[in-house]
Amino acid sequence: MNQVAPYVHKVQYYETDKMSITHHSNYVRWMEEARVDYLSKIGWDFDKLEETGIASPVVSVEVHYKGTTTFPEEVSIEVKILACKGVRLTLGYDMKNADGKLVCQAKSEHCFLNMEGRPVRLEKDCPEFYQELVSRITEE
Amino acid sequence: MNQVAPYVHKVQYYETDKMSITHHSNYVRWMEEARVDYLSKIGWDFDKLEETGIASPVVSVEVHYKGTTTFPEEVSIEVKILACKGVRLTLGYDMKNADGKLVCQAKSEHCFLNMEGRPVRLEKDCPEFYQELVSRITEE
Amino acid sequence: MNQVAPYVHKVQYYETDKMSITHHSNYVRWMEEARVDYLSKIGWDFDKLEETGIASPVVSVEVHYKGTTTFPEEVSIEVKILACKGVRLTLGYDMKNADGKLVCQAKSEHCFLNMEGRPVRLEKDCPEFYQELVSRITEE
Amino acid sequence: MNQVAPYVHKVQYYETDKMSITHHSNYVRWMEEARVDYLSKIGWDFDKLEETGIASPVVSVEVHYKGTTTFPEEVSIEVKILACKGVRLTLGYDMKNADGKLVCQAKSEHCFLNMEGRPVRLEKDCPEFYQELVSRITEE
Repeated sequence: MNQVAPYVHKVQYYETDKMSITHHSNYVRWMEEARVDYLSKIGWDFDKLEETGIASPVVSVEVHYKGTTTFPEEVSIEVKILACKGVRLTLGYDMKNADGKLVCQAKSEHCFLNMEGRPVRLEKDCPEFYQELVSRITEE
Repeated sequence: MNQVAPYVHKVQYYETDKMSITHHSNYVRWMEEARVDYLSKIGWDFDKLEETGIASPVVSVEVHYKGTTTFPEEVSIEVKILACKGVRLTLGYDMKNADGKLVCQAKSEHCFLNMEGRPVRLEKDCPEFYQELVSRITEE
Repeated sequence: MNQVAPYVHKVQYYETDKMSITHHSNYVRWMEEARVDYLSKIGWDFDKLEETGIASPVVSVEVHYKGTTTFPEEVSIEVKILACKGVRLTLGYDMKNADGKLVCQAKSEHCFLNMEGRPVRLEKDCPEFYQELVSRITEE
Repeated sequence: MNQVAPYVHKVQYYETDKMSITHHSNYVRWMEEARVDYLSKIGWDFDKLEETGIASPVVSVEVHYKGTTTFPEEVSIEVKILACKGVRLTLGYDMKNADGKLVCQAKSEHCFLNMEGRPVRLEKDCPEFYQELVSRITEE
């Protein structure tokens, strides 16, 4: 299993708020950016997932703000697969600034649905994707 | 023809930027909010328009920033119909702060499409909506 | 202690995504809207808090998506104070659609900082605000 | 005068709307991203501009939507300096999809302010920046 390079997000001016820092809601958007990038890097980009007919909506997010960032910083986001069983996938996100300081630590939980919106058991319905995810599970 | 009360948008904290003012991109979103509200108030809310099978995507916007606003101000937005002919609708927006000062003046142009994405001549295909719009045209 | 009316957010078109539902990141923004509204309704609007010289940045959020919403729905958000001790405030959010269905349940944690960015013990430094918050703590 | 490579923006999932396309308000944000990138590439990144004590708020934007884009496309944005005289700077933006199709054409106007918020004549107050901008003016 090869390592996946972190995703880099450049903080935009429009992402800052009147405290002169990145508004906290944006980190949830960066989680999505990093997740899409990660899946693409392990061979499951959006188009391939869409062809498979599987969607993975967000069931929950948990975000811990450890520091602040602002425009025009670069934030490096490492994605980890924390769990993948039954109908649930749990991802972890470590976000660091240019100095390597952890600025945000987060988790997202996802389920898997088919095109009719019915829950899918990934192990049975898309074993190739399931195996890829499981092989990459990281101790939390 | 009865007057339409202005739409009121409360500036949100997350709409501010590191200049401590509303980020300029948000005014384009408020134009949409005010437009939806206006159409609803003249009897053409989103559900009714959707039933009619007519969409009116934005073809262009023009926004002139005359002053600044910030959280937690209220901005009052008056919508005007500037033109409606053939396949084009032009709307105007006057945005004022609580002191009545004009903070933003804008325009949006829209075309009309049917569900297959083909241009629609409103006068022919939805005369009731067309008449309502035309009756409200305001001198610029 | 009087009851506080829920905050109502109208879902905007620009808040939807290509799944035709509200993008999940927006709920974090609505939490902020509802929080500001709640504090205002219990007598601590933004201007008063700012005069006091106390800021309460978000330390963490936890959001559980229980259902979907979309434009042009109205979402009713009830804010609860779950805990307020030492330097931490924990708020809860129950978001319901027009049918009363719970669509999102969330929490946010806040600390208190003075204008120099140093942690503040609310009980000591702003007892009036502290008492108001504590008197409203709800069993989770 | 060397050529400046276009800025590339990857459309994000959260930038789409229920029409399954990029919401039109995002193009105004991409203009800002491309502008910051352009200024940085010609030697005037945000930090340098800030040191100079000059801010250049947006006075107006004009955006013409020529086509649609969606997640996960890449949009290439070419920035042009259309005019720079007195206290005004006018920039142009040509946005193309991967097939080279023009999807959006836009303009933004900026003024120059010093840290006290007073208008600045760039030619006099920051001649080095002024010369750089003027040398790059493109016929519209």
